Formats: sequence, C-alpha cells, structure tokens
Amino acid sequence: MSMVDGKVNRRRMLGSMGLLGAGAAVTAATVSLPGLEREAGAAPAALQELTNDEMDALHEAGVKAFPAATAGKGGQPLEPQMDGDTKVFVLTCQVVQWEYMPGKTVEAWTYNGAVPGPEIRVTEGDKVRIIVKNDLPFSTSVHWHGLILPNAMDGVPYITQPPIKPGESFIYEWQVREGNTGSHMYHSHHNSAEQTPKGLLGPFIVEPKDKTKLPAYDLEYTMILNDGPIGGYSINGKGFPATEPIVVKKGQKLLVRYMNEGLMIHPMHLHGMPQQVVARDGFLLPSPYMADTIEVDPGQRTDVIIDCTELGVWAYHCHVLSHAEGPTGMFGMVTALIVQE
Amino acid sequence: MSMVDGKVNRRRMLGSMGLLGAGAAVTAATVSLPGLEREAGAAPAALQELTNDEMDALHEAGVKAFPAATAGKGGQPLEPQMDGDTKVFVLTCQVVQWEYMPGKTVEAWTYNGAVPGPEIRVTEGDKVRIIVKNDLPFSTSVHWHGLILPNAMDGVPYITQPPIKPGESFIYEWQVREGNTGSHMYHSHHNSAEQTPKGLLGPFIVEPKDKTKLPAYDLEYTMILNDGPIGGYSINGKGFPATEPIVVKKGQKLLVRYMNEGLMIHPMHLHGMPQQVVARDGFLLPSPYMADTIEVDPGQRTDVIIDCTELGVWAYHCHVLSHAEGPTGMFGMVTALIVQE
Amino acid sequence: MSMVDGKVNRRRMLGSMGLLGAGAAVTAATVSLPGLEREAGAAPAALQELTNDEMDALHEAGVKAFPAATAGKGGQPLEPQMDGDTKVFVLTCQVVQWEYMPGKTVEAWTYNGAVPGPEIRVTEGDKVRIIVKNDLPFSTSVHWHGLILPNAMDGVPYITQPPIKPGESFIYEWQVREGNTGSHMYHSHHNSAEQTPKGLLGPFIVEPKDKTKLPAYDLEYTMILNDGPIGGYSINGKGFPATEPIVVKKGQKLLVRYMNEGLMIHPMHLHGMPQQVVARDGFLLPSPYMADTIEVDPGQRTDVIIDCTELGVWAYHCHVLSHAEGPTGMFGMVTALIVQE
Repeated sequence: MSMVDGKVNRRRMLGSMGLLGAGAAVTAATVSLPGLEREAGAAPAALQELTNDEMDALHEAGVKAFPAATAGKGGQPLEPQMDGDTKVFVLTCQVVQWEYMPGKTVEAWTYNGAVPGPEIRVTEGDKVRIIVKNDLPFSTSVHWHGLILPNAMDGVPYITQPPIKPGESFIYEWQVREGNTGSHMYHSHHNSAEQTPKGLLGPFIVEPKDKTKLPAYDLEYTMILNDGPIGGYSINGKGFPATEPIVVKKGQKLLVRYMNEGLMIHPMHLHGMPQQVVARDGFLLPSPYMADTIEVDPGQRTDVIIDCTELGVWAYHCHVLSHAEGPTGMFGMVTALIVQE
Repeated sequence: MSMVDGKVNRRRMLGSMGLLGAGAAVTAATVSLPGLEREAGAAPAALQELTNDEMDALHEAGVKAFPAATAGKGGQPLEPQMDGDTKVFVLTCQVVQWEYMPGKTVEAWTYNGAVPGPEIRVTEGDKVRIIVKNDLPFSTSVHWHGLILPNAMDGVPYITQPPIKPGESFIYEWQVREGNTGSHMYHSHHNSAEQTPKGLLGPFIVEPKDKTKLPAYDLEYTMILNDGPIGGYSINGKGFPATEPIVVKKGQKLLVRYMNEGLMIHPMHLHGMPQQVVARDGFLLPSPYMADTIEVDPGQRTDVIIDCTELGVWAYHCHVLSHAEGPTGMFGMVTALIVQE
Repeated sequence: MSMVDGKVNRRRMLGSMGLLGAGAAVTAATVSLPGLEREAGAAPAALQELTNDEMDALHEAGVKAFPAATAGKGGQPLEPQMDGDTKVFVLTCQVVQWEYMPGKTVEAWTYNGAVPGPEIRVTEGDKVRIIVKNDLPFSTSVHWHGLILPNAMDGVPYITQPPIKPGESFIYEWQVREGNTGSHMYHSHHNSAEQTPKGLLGPFIVEPKDKTKLPAYDLEYTMILNDGPIGGYSINGKGFPATEPIVVKKGQKLLVRYMNEGLMIHPMHLHGMPQQVVARDGFLLPSPYMADTIEVDPGQRTDVIIDCTELGVWAYHCHVLSHAEGPTGMFGMVTALIVQE
C-alpha cells in the first residue's frame, strides 16, 4: 500500500523534530486503522467493538502522525509577471485529485491545482491584471471578495459579466484602491455554494504602502477555513493530521488572518495564549479586543495578533467540537501553534 | 424539451430590458420555468441531464427576471389613528396565500396580510396603543422585541397575559421610553418557532426626538431576514428574483437596518462597498467599525451605513452561500444595491 | 382522554401558586403529561389531534410548572482544601443518571455527579492543584479553557499528557497567572465532541485581586449553555421548566456570565431590559456596548451587566426559537429574570 511507503519516507524526513518527535514511531499498521477514518463515515458498529485502549491508540496514532505528509500545498505565493507597471497574475481553473488527509483524495475544483488557490499579494495603488483561464468542464467566474473595484470586474455572472465558459478566459483588471488594504479573498461566484467549498477559493492580501500604522507583528499566517461537502472540515485545504503546525519563537508576535470560505461558523480557539482581534474584513478595528475563541462567520476575515509568550505545543482548533474530534481522535479543523525557545 | 423553448421565449420576452426595467412584465408563464424552481426541490436527476449551457441559461433567466413582480409587499408603513395623544395601530393576524417567488405561493401567517407585517414607526415618548385582532385559527400573542415596557405588555402567554384565542383581541398600550430608540421588531411569542418564521413578524422603529446625534444618512432600508420552513430563505418575505433592489444615487449614504427573524445566522455581504456598523439592537455602538460581511444572529438587529460611492449593480446576499445560490442560479437571500448617477 | 384529566389534576394541584411558589411540589405524575414531553420526540400525529385549547393548556402547564423541581443542581461552589498555600480541588469523573427535566433522566458524564460540574473559583495569583479522578468506564482528560498555564497542564491527550484511563487520576497544578481573570471553563478534551456535551463541563472563575477595576454589579449568575445530543437544549444542565429563575431586587445590577459548552450558536435574549456587554473570554472589553440579544458561540464566554430597572417576570431565552419553544410549549433554553420590589 503506497501509504506505507509514504509513511516510511515521512519518518525518515521528520527525524527527531519534536512533537514532531515520536510521531515517527507510528507504523503504517497503526494509521491504517479506522483512526484515520474518523470523518463522517466511521461505522458505529465497528466502533462498538473497540476497547477503550484501542480507542485511545487511535487517538494517539492521529496525534503522532501530525503533521502528516500529503501531496500538494495550497495558498502559496503567486509571483506576478510585470507588464509595464501592471502586475499580471494567471489563475487556471482546473479539476485535480486533492489529498486532504493522508491517503485520502477527493476531486477538487482549484485555481492552479491547489486548495486554497495561490496567495495573491499586492500593495494598495498597484495595477493588477488577473487572467482567469477556465479548464473546468463547467462555467465559472471569480469574485474578489472585499476588493473595491469597477462594477464590471466584480465577477457576478449575468450582472457584471457573462460566465467564463469551459475553455474560455476572462481578464480582471483594476487599480487597487488606496485604503483598500488587508485580508481579502477570491472565489467562484457561479454556482458558488458548490464551486467555492469544493476548492475555488484563495487569499487576496493587500499591503498598505505605509506599514507603520499596522499593529506590530513578526510573522503572519493565513488560515482559510472550509467545511465543503467534499474534504470535510479543513484548514488550508487539509484535515488533521495533515494540517500544518505554525512554528514560532517565544516572544514573537504572530498575525493570523482567519478567512471563512465555508458555510458554517468556526469559532477558532487557541490554547495557551489569548488573541487580540485587530481587524475585520481588512479594516483595522478602532477598538481592538482580547479573546481566546474567535468567531469567524462565512465570508468574514478576522485578523488577530498572538503574543507567543508560552513555550510548548498548543492545540489550535475550531470549537464546534464536532468539527475537530470524533470517537477515534482529532480530525478536521485542528492544528497546533508550536512555541520554541 | 420544453425548457429549451421556455428559454427562447424568455429571451424574446425579456429583450434588453436591463435589470430594473420591465421586471413587472414578467408573467407567470415565464416564471414557471425550471430556472425559477431552484429551491430545495430541484431534482438532482433532472439537473444531471442539463448541459452546462442549459445550466447557465437558467442562471441567466433568474438574473434577468430580477426584480420579478409578485403579489403583495410587506413592511409598508402603517399609519396610526390618533386617540387624543395616543397613536393607535391595528394589527390583524390572518392566514393568507403569500407569493414569495413568482408563481410560488405558500400559506403564510401574517399581520395585516403581508410578510413582513407593516412597519410601525413612532418617536420616543410617544403613547402607543396596538390592537391585535386574532383571525387565525389558533392562539397567538405579540412580543415587542427590543421595546422596554410594562411587564403586562410583554406578550408572553401565561407569564404576562393569556394567549389571544381565535376571534379575540388584545390591546397593547405603553408610552415609548425615552432612549428606547432604534431598530426593533415585533413577532409572535406563542408557538413562536413556528409562528414567527411563518410570517408573524414585523419591524418596529423608534425615532429619537433629537436626530442630530444619529450618524448622518440620506435614506434608509429595512431588511428582514428569514429562513422559515415555509418560503425558504427570504429578504422581506421574498426570495430572489422577487426581492427588491435598493436604488440610490451615487454619493448618498444609506442606512440599512438588518433584522434576523429566522433561526439561522445570515452574514450579509454587499459587493463593491464596505459597511459601517453603527448600532446593535437599537443602541448606537460606542466604537463603530467597518466590515463587508455583517453577522446577524437570530433576534438581533444590526444597523449599518453604506457610503454609496461606486456606480453599478452590486450583488447583496447572505454569505452562507447555500442560502443564496444553487446549481441552477441564485435564489433566496439575494438582492442588489444599484448605485446610479 | 387522559390528557384532559391530567389537565384537571394539574390545575387542582398547581392551584394559584404563582410562578415561584410551590414549584417544588410538582410531582413526577404531573410531569408525565404530554405538555412536558415537548422535546424532539413529540409525535406529529398526536399533536394534530389536539384542539387549540388543548395546545394552549399544554403551554400553560409548562409555564405554571416553572420552576419545576428536579433532582440535582450543577455549578455549585467547590470548596478547596488547603495544602500549605495551595488550593486543592478534587473532581471525580463519574456516570450518573441526571434529571434534566421533571421525570426525565439521562445518562450524564459528570464531574462530581452534577451537570455542570462544580464551580471552581479562585483569585489571580492563587496556587491551585486539581486532582482529577476518573471513575468513568473510558479515558478522559481536562482542558482549562481560557486559563494560561504550563503546557503540561493543558489537558490534551498525546500532546500534553496521556489520557486519564479508567480508575486512574491526574493532577493538574499551576499558579494562576496575574491578569488571567474572569469567566473561564473546564471540560473534557478527549473525545470531546461527545464527552463535553454529555456533561463533562464546568465553570472556572478567576477573581482579580483588585476588584475596583471591574464594572459595578450587585450579584452574579453563571449561565452555561449546552445543546448535547443527550438532554437537549439546556441552561445549567436543565431544560425549561426545570431551569432556575434568577431573582433580583429592582435596582440591582446583575452580572451574567454566559458560557457556551455546546456545538451551536445561542443568542441569548432577555425581555424587558437591555444588557451591557462588558467582557469576552475573561477580558474586559475596551468599548462595552449595549444589546438585547447576545451572541455566544461555542467555546466563548460573554459577560453582561443587566441594570434591573423593570419589575416583573421577564422571559429569558435563546432566540434560536426552535431551541426554546415547540408546538406544545416552551422547553429547553428558557428561564426568567424576576425583578421584585
């Protein structure tokens, strides 16, 4: 079974890295247990036959497998080509098989073959041109969620443009408005309740020219939440233990950009350290506040800053607990913040 | 297949009427097309037989039909009769057949025959008397959600009053408290999980005597959100394309009063322009903030001000995408903000 | 039909006891009436046979039974033993039969035999030791939700500790951090989507050394919201009419600590008086705001202060109406604020 080989390779790869440590001892036999089949489909009958120790072993296997290697990583920066002073990005809509948990693949509808689509990052005032090529077997369109732009660029079929038919392209072009900064998104706006959760989504981040007005942070991480019918509860296109831990040094300030591309609420709870909520939908809050469980409704982006003062491996998950843990272990919307010396 | 013909007929009939033009001319024959039967019931088998172009055509038909004419309009101002210095309103609870989408009617339980019930609008300090006549075949009561009033006027059967039996009336009377201003609601508080979503709901707005403390706006619009088992996802009692567009002049400031009378969250997303959140449940926020996707939980009212700076037709919808679009087009909680010169 | 007789008996028995009076006298015989079987299971067929008056009578019976006596009360203060300057608390995890509505019991998984578990209340800077004994037939662990503590005390099996096996104990010990004050929770973090909603949850409150910085209040009440598969929609482990009214004197300021331990949103609506939102997840808000329907997402704590200016019995319930009322009366997440002279 190819997963076995994958696991062995992984073991070699991860070495002695910590949480990352004894995970390597988990054998393929372990992870092929129902423990990793803990999404919807787990058969109650099978569960009832398990002893408590066997159940615990499945929980352990899941944690020790984290972070589990899977093919494909979404949300990676997309380098623009320059055409004069215009930044040109190309997004190709395509169907791929997406490995969202180790050994589990699903048909995903993607931009450039990954879920989430690539990160588009520009600066306010930039001229941008985004060429969207549709290699899907159905029509689509792209809405730039949070961006202020000419109506014709808004991406709503039959209101602002015709849909992009299979094999066709559409060029979106505008100058990013002064002040239209922060955490935004792009996603399908055609049959969107199906197309977006199935993967046609990505982050669109606009940096201000003057960063001195931003709250201070040392590093940042974008966390796209999804609950698509395909792939289940996910963070950046992966379900635990295939999610990515965030690794920081003690004392660093971490900016997290939550983006909810799903159809449900996902209150994100970080253990160990509170979060300062600093922005909503790209706008700095006039009155930032502290909390530890951050509501993120569908379509919203919430930026928080975490002062990483506490050493250790801290669970980080959606607090709708059924999005994060089942009888045989954690799954779905779970990752970890790892604070190191 | 008749749908193909229907498509042709529709196209011929709709011509180039634009989004706002002859919406009233859409006939029942037109709206019996499958394109407008995109709620829950659409048969997957039938959908699978459609080509991509046929699917797109259904999307187009829905948009081109907007705003589609339907019988009945809720939330219209109710003029009081004066009895001395008391403003007297009469609400009659009655069952009607309510056309919530073109050609689609449902049994609704209403105040004065419309969903939402009529808008009651008074000024702080006003003496109000509301005579509720129950012509329903079952008992009811009215709760004045957000109003501060004597306990006996609160509308909770067996706690503050007996239920209003079929054929009976109840008189609610109080003086609107100083400071108890803003966006409120009235709805059934008897078997309320059924009676309210089925239509026994309406807006209750209290204007301050001194409007100079309000944030500035040029016009206002009340948007009552509902997700009743009957009629589905709706804005002001109608589902797209029978919802009403909001038409403004460029440069106007628009106050939108969101009111959630349903049982689910409805984060409302306006394309093209952000929203300034200025009040919650009738109270001005001490620290207004900007966002583009506004959470509105059941029972809440959130007031926003939109600076209508961008020309065009802007989609405006619930961002729980499954409340707004299906495989054959947009439906339910979708409308548009149209900004004109 | 026995229901008719039941109604008569009930009326005779309840007499004119008012809302608060002889609630304790309601017997199991009384509560076996259909009127109190208004949760999920009520058979539609049976309902259709009821006349409107019979339906109303069931509503009345529910209200008149409030507050209905049930065995067991959760969330009671747990007195620590002192070991030097360390406050020692003992939590025993155990299965009990829990009466969540009159005459209705369910298997609950509890700390010290009650739902919610006992209230742990300490002061910032305190040294605490919590001995958790697992008398459950399955493994568990405890997460101190909102508390800032050493990683090894965080309660996540296989990340920070092994699970606590049946018959075993685990000792959590830390010094409560300066500034880590306010409303927090403890709950299972092992198979948590099942264990927590089934009762392994409780309040953890940290008082500041200097209370002068807190907003002023005269008395406080903790309201733990839950929507477990077992026991249904509940406030502090009970469903209406077995929930507990909050009784205050006119003019008192009441602090309510909302804690959501369930899997759904519960916007809490108090009739008659607004609520000032003063804290989130234990942190005072820099900009408190007024509202009457307070969103509380899973894992969140929201503190409000209610200025109890209005005399009377005021309904107080989740405004997802289907969590609070059915065809035969109120149930679940309903209680009352009673303001007396």
